[in-house]
Amino acid sequence: MKIVNKEFSLSSSNRNQMIDITGEVTSIAGKSGITNGEVVIYCPHTTAAVTINENADPSVQHDIVFVLEDLIRPGRREYRHSEGNADSHAKSSIIGCSERVVIRDGTLVLGTWQGVFFCEFDGPRHRRVIVQVIGE
Amino acid sequence: MKIVNKEFSLSSSNRNQMIDITGEVTSIAGKSGITNGEVVIYCPHTTAAVTINENADPSVQHDIVFVLEDLIRPGRREYRHSEGNADSHAKSSIIGCSERVVIRDGTLVLGTWQGVFFCEFDGPRHRRVIVQVIGE
Amino acid sequence: MKIVNKEFSLSSSNRNQMIDITGEVTSIAGKSGITNGEVVIYCPHTTAAVTINENADPSVQHDIVFVLEDLIRPGRREYRHSEGNADSHAKSSIIGCSERVVIRDGTLVLGTWQGVFFCEFDGPRHRRVIVQVIGE
Repeated sequence: MKIVNKEFSLSSSNRNQMIDITGEVTSIAGKSGITNGEVVIYCPHTTAAVTINENADPSVQHDIVFVLEDLIRPGRREYRHSEGNADSHAKSSIIGCSERVVIRDGTLVLGTWQGVFFCEFDGPRHRRVIVQVIGE
Repeated sequence: MKIVNKEFSLSSSNRNQMIDITGEVTSIAGKSGITNGEVVIYCPHTTAAVTINENADPSVQHDIVFVLEDLIRPGRREYRHSEGNADSHAKSSIIGCSERVVIRDGTLVLGTWQGVFFCEFDGPRHRRVIVQVIGE
Repeated sequence: MKIVNKEFSLSSSNRNQMIDITGEVTSIAGKSGITNGEVVIYCPHTTAAVTINENADPSVQHDIVFVLEDLIRPGRREYRHSEGNADSHAKSSIIGCSERVVIRDGTLVLGTWQGVFFCEFDGPRHRRVIVQVIGE
């Protein structure tokens, strides 16, 4: 059994934004030497998330962000959290702060249209992404 | 450490639908010979998802699908994605494209009422499900 | 490779409630002797979930619960499930019934503000939490 721990950082430019990190994840998995197992992508922030979705047409990212902004509005009078980002925390838990992709016979098993995205919900900010590759 | 990779396919019949795949997952885990570890169920599609919920009363599946259809409407004028399935992509990221179940002492640790479901959000389609069992 | 299986129980006091279980998870991970790998936190119930979010300011928990209660209402006439908790099942699938945290060099890689929460959506109830630590 082999475990490889890596991390990288990125900067977001909008309050709500999906950032394609497929290249970084694929590179770390490839360099790990692990040919069967999985790669875990973990966001250590409470107003951001990680998801897997289409990275061919950027309008998909626009539409997912639109749906979340439309459903979960900032600044509602019922919120008690005083930092003005209660909506960001809710979006983080709804999308979830980690994903994993299976590695099989030396290849990340992403579907044809799938990419890995860091989801910013309280940007612009500087952020970290934790990656762990586990397998053999 | 042992890793077993499998996949199977299925066909959905509705645009939005939950399909019980507990039998397939349990069978793959059982045949793997892995008695402690976990089974990962991964959907390689960007308009579908995987979830765990009640499989005793089919009305639960109806109600979950209803909630998602009601919250995330198709065909909104704000969508930019031209394929007519922006809502399907959003549902996929909100539910998430994978789940995992713990294997403990030779048994999948599903709760009494829990089953594993493939969630179709842009059917009817032919779909694949990736399964990886990891453990010892 | 080492695998440690544990579980613990808790009692919720409200219908919708986030309960901080970071201490229990950290303790199990610490006692496992596993210094690199991951800890999986799994909820074997279909009207509850597990999430990771801020545990410094309790108002964040209030606001996440408020967002979910506001989006997914109980008792809608379209629901078919007769037990009165269709909304609870939907919330469970939207948040998700498990999370995992990376263990790196003997430490749980939780972000500065992150804690692990059990999410009750049909309390008050007595509940179980399954924990598996996997690594070396």
